[in-house]
Amino acid sequence: MLETLKWTDNGVLFIDQTKLPTEEVWVNCRTHEEVADAIRTMIVRGAPAIGCAAAMGIALGARDLDAKGISEFRNGFGQICRLMGETRPTAVNLFWAIRRMQRRFEELSTRPLPLIKQMLIDEALAIYHEDIATNRTMGANGAPLLPAEGGVLTHCNAGALATAGYGTALGVIRAAVESGKKLHVFADETRPFLQGARLTAWELMKDNIPVTLISDNMAGYMMAKGKIQAVIVGADRIAANGDTANKIGTYSVAILAREHGIPMYIAAPFSTVDLETADGSGIPIEQRSPREVTHIGGKQIAPTGVLVENPAFDVTPAKYIRAIITERGVATAPFGESLQKLAEQKPAE
Amino acid sequence: MLETLKWTDNGVLFIDQTKLPTEEVWVNCRTHEEVADAIRTMIVRGAPAIGCAAAMGIALGARDLDAKGISEFRNGFGQICRLMGETRPTAVNLFWAIRRMQRRFEELSTRPLPLIKQMLIDEALAIYHEDIATNRTMGANGAPLLPAEGGVLTHCNAGALATAGYGTALGVIRAAVESGKKLHVFADETRPFLQGARLTAWELMKDNIPVTLISDNMAGYMMAKGKIQAVIVGADRIAANGDTANKIGTYSVAILAREHGIPMYIAAPFSTVDLETADGSGIPIEQRSPREVTHIGGKQIAPTGVLVENPAFDVTPAKYIRAIITERGVATAPFGESLQKLAEQKPAE
Repeated sequence: MLETLKWTDNGVLFIDQTKLPTEEVWVNCRTHEEVADAIRTMIVRGAPAIGCAAAMGIALGARDLDAKGISEFRNGFGQICRLMGETRPTAVNLFWAIRRMQRRFEELSTRPLPLIKQMLIDEALAIYHEDIATNRTMGANGAPLLPAEGGVLTHCNAGALATAGYGTALGVIRAAVESGKKLHVFADETRPFLQGARLTAWELMKDNIPVTLISDNMAGYMMAKGKIQAVIVGADRIAANGDTANKIGTYSVAILAREHGIPMYIAAPFSTVDLETADGSGIPIEQRSPREVTHIGGKQIAPTGVLVENPAFDVTPAKYIRAIITERGVATAPFGESLQKLAEQKPAE
Repeated sequence: MLETLKWTDNGVLFIDQTKLPTEEVWVNCRTHEEVADAIRTMIVRGAPAIGCAAAMGIALGARDLDAKGISEFRNGFGQICRLMGETRPTAVNLFWAIRRMQRRFEELSTRPLPLIKQMLIDEALAIYHEDIATNRTMGANGAPLLPAEGGVLTHCNAGALATAGYGTALGVIRAAVESGKKLHVFADETRPFLQGARLTAWELMKDNIPVTLISDNMAGYMMAKGKIQAVIVGADRIAANGDTANKIGTYSVAILAREHGIPMYIAAPFSTVDLETADGSGIPIEQRSPREVTHIGGKQIAPTGVLVENPAFDVTPAKYIRAIITERGVATAPFGESLQKLAEQKPAE
């Protein structure tokens, strides 16, 4: 299985997603600050992968805390969690992972420091392994929704590289292909960061799943030509009513899909569902550097000084979404009810 | 006024649009073959500019024909016209300009060769000057349709650089701004060739018209945020029923505009209207090299060997179009009738 990140005793390793597909380079982050930088600079990206990375970064920082007692440790641990929480605002998996590490710490806070440190590492590894299992279950849940054959459009990278492994949207595609479906993936290149061109195309080619790369603005054309039978993407945060924040451009794809009568699916671990956010208007949208738009691979493609907007995400209202595929099951409209029902369900172990 | 191309006795000069915005370099094409190459490689691009360039290329080739008599000249002239017609298939202005040069030649074919050669040069220059005048008239016709203030989205470059000067869609924006309207232009970067980032942003900044550059996939987000009050683009070919071929991605923008209740305008000289093509299904769509998608400025951004689609244009069905702005007047639905009426109208001199 394609690996994205891994814990080692010498630090957290990430495949450098800013260098793919032309270079396969691993980066070793030896401190939690370096892990935070890797998240901020998108060496690692994708909501579930960010959650795993943050948990490992916290475990790493906690392990290396030179604290004399629990109170000093608690202070240091709090600072580590805060730093990690300031990396990227939109993906709720980040905050979910931080809270989970914090809860684990509170459960353990009467125990000896060396044990706490080891158990925090174990918790981060559990998040990692659970994410892979979650993706497999999500794949099994979602695969029946995809057509027996045809084209499936995806946007950004919701693959192995966006998770601990296997992927969310690409996990569903992988599961469908493993079950014998004959799918051809159309990958939006996904400007400005080009996750589709650089990452989705790369990992699908590694898996021998047929993939055609298109510019984002070709999606409508491909739909009109009858080449797309389904759209499936990941998510960075899903509000209680089903409104879904995902990579910028997802909203446009959703409108195009509806106009062509093509179903639009979201695949995400249940940790992406944020029941505390009522609807999409409450999801913060990260604005990133203009340079991502004005430069590609160091090459300037726009006039010096031009005004730029660079929202990293947009929100797709629930009405455009046919179903939300999670490891707990598939939610359909009305999403307020169906997501609540999944929330009340005991997670499978 | 910003110049795109010009006739000189030593050849046809083009500002090299593949080098903008970081370099302003002029290319001198000394033969009609070099002009054909400049069209094919998009040193010059934009439907009306292609028409002007082709006419000048034909005039240049005809001038330099070493023919002993009219029959030999006619052969050479036919070959020049054929070569020019094989450069790019979608923009009908190319074929319109070639036919106009051919008709002029037939009118002149009993005259002495030196006179024919000079009159063909004069005809190319007439096409050039008429294009600028046409754009000014189009601007005057279209400016009242734009809002008194607000955001206007454009896709690709339908500006001075796409014409002999002033522009079609950007000409309408220029005329609106000159009439006192307070407009802010949002320029889609327009992958894969980045005409929006490289050309539209550049020429609007030169004219001090406020412009914000966005990735193509941000258009829906900007519309949802209420930042866009109108969409205006150019055209490469307009079928008799109003279906409009324009730069890839225009169709997607049109669907997004309708979903948000935003009017979508086309601005094009009447030479872009092809009454011999009944509807959009009859418009040939040029497929360009995969390398335009997989590389940006020489930098590889996708895995080696990935499958790519690269249609240069798409067709926006007439139902998404609020109005087609031409120098003869503004056509609205039903376009079959309104375009026919404009066709029967004697062009203003």
